[in-house]
Amino acid sequence: RSYCSRMAQTEGLFFRQLFESESSTYTYLLADTETKEAILIDPVLETIDRDVKLIQELGLNLKVAVNTHCHADHITSTGLMKKRLVGLKSAISKFSGASADIHLTEGDKITFGKHYLTVRQTPGHTDGCMSLVSGDQNMVFTGDALLIRGCGRTDFQQGCAKKLYESIHQKIFTLPDHCLVYPAHDYLGQTASTVGEERKFNPRLTKSLEEFVKIMNNLNLPKPKKIVSPVGADRGSRRPVIRGWDG
Amino acid sequence: RSYCSRMAQTEGLFFRQLFESESSTYTYLLADTETKEAILIDPVLETIDRDVKLIQELGLNLKVAVNTHCHADHITSTGLMKKRLVGLKSAISKFSGASADIHLTEGDKITFGKHYLTVRQTPGHTDGCMSLVSGDQNMVFTGDALLIRGCGRTDFQQGCAKKLYESIHQKIFTLPDHCLVYPAHDYLGQTASTVGEERKFNPRLTKSLEEFVKIMNNLNLPKPKKIVSPVGADRGSRRPVIRGWDG
Ligand SMILES: [Fe+2]
Ligand SMILES: [Fe+2]
Repeated sequence: RSYCSRMAQTEGLFFRQLFESESSTYTYLLADTETKEAILIDPVLETIDRDVKLIQELGLNLKVAVNTHCHADHITSTGLMKKRLVGLKSAISKFSGASADIHLTEGDKITFGKHYLTVRQTPGHTDGCMSLVSGDQNMVFTGDALLIRGCGRTDFQQGCAKKLYESIHQKIFTLPDHCLVYPAHDYLGQTASTVGEERKFNPRLTKSLEEFVKIMNNLNLPKPKKIVSPVGADRGSRRPVIRGWDG
Repeated sequence: RSYCSRMAQTEGLFFRQLFESESSTYTYLLADTETKEAILIDPVLETIDRDVKLIQELGLNLKVAVNTHCHADHITSTGLMKKRLVGLKSAISKFSGASADIHLTEGDKITFGKHYLTVRQTPGHTDGCMSLVSGDQNMVFTGDALLIRGCGRTDFQQGCAKKLYESIHQKIFTLPDHCLVYPAHDYLGQTASTVGEERKFNPRLTKSLEEFVKIMNNLNLPKPKKIVSPVGADRGSRRPVIRGWDG
């Protein structure tokens, strides 16, 4: 019975996961199948034609294009997309330091038709990282905070391992076990996970805070030659793409 | 009301899409969450460790590893996986000419717990191509017959454009519009589609049979230097990987 009511809330939700292979980024398109109002999460410049075509084929009205944080590994298509889709607004965290039409903060809702996502601030990879939770808590879009069996790097761009650990434990691992985890990246061909799986099997987050901090401070990931200042949600500044860059 | 009963059938179904980036192949893991019985569709040799680890983490009992057809672009992991997971059986179409523990034909069911997939023969890319339809017709795994906004090539390996056109129209486009389409490959970062979308927007299959045949006979796709005979489901023979190889 409770099952039916939970599912009934997701009835009428269009959901589509898309992948950009150069930066291994996932983009997500969600829409209300009745009103056709739609939102797009973390769109990438390279795939703007594919994404706009799909939106137009499906007759969707894209209201908001939201970035989960300032991306260092690819350019967002938000700015260019606003020029191609009339009425589209860009959104990003207030704490990202980036420009956008909408600045989001804890508890804010991004609404499309009868559906919505709620903002949970999950800093640690960057100060402005946020996760987006569906109204029925069946899905969470974790950006570069929680990755599948991994997490975002914390060694530059305001990165802080302690902050990330607390964000994930307090804001993501408190969601129901069955909640599907959709990250901004995956480098191993994994498309989704669940909160329950990550609580059990994430090799970093199952450790104590102390061990986690030690792991994160000893990853020795390749660093960019030039760190640029946080990019605007409507502009963008490419960094060299390195496989596994963000996680 | 009818909505709830349709969903209720999918209740207790675990579903996970996985990707192998070199050959752009999708692998699918499905399981009954109660009995833990599982099946795997189109596993790739390169990702066997990832797949076996996930199966073991989730405590699944992998009963059947099924190939939708004889793959020319990658080696299946079926044979090696049987050595690592006790009791696993391989399955492939009777018309593939390949060896396997189970030879499938039209209408056969692959059962795992209370769930099952039904075989629909969809030749045209190869003689032994089949699509697998979930019991509730909410999902179809189309192999290399129907791809997202595309289809499998028909210019070698018993390929026949007319046969493929009829297979897709008679066996796949007769499924409900909302039925999710999960192909064996995608080269553009698309992870899923629906029967309704492909009926409307597939640039090849929306054409007449005559136009379709003309398109397929003029693709001028690169051919392998050496065409090997159909490989066994338990063995495998690599062909050079070319991006967009199969579609
Ligand atoms: Fe990032
Ligand atoms: Fe193929």
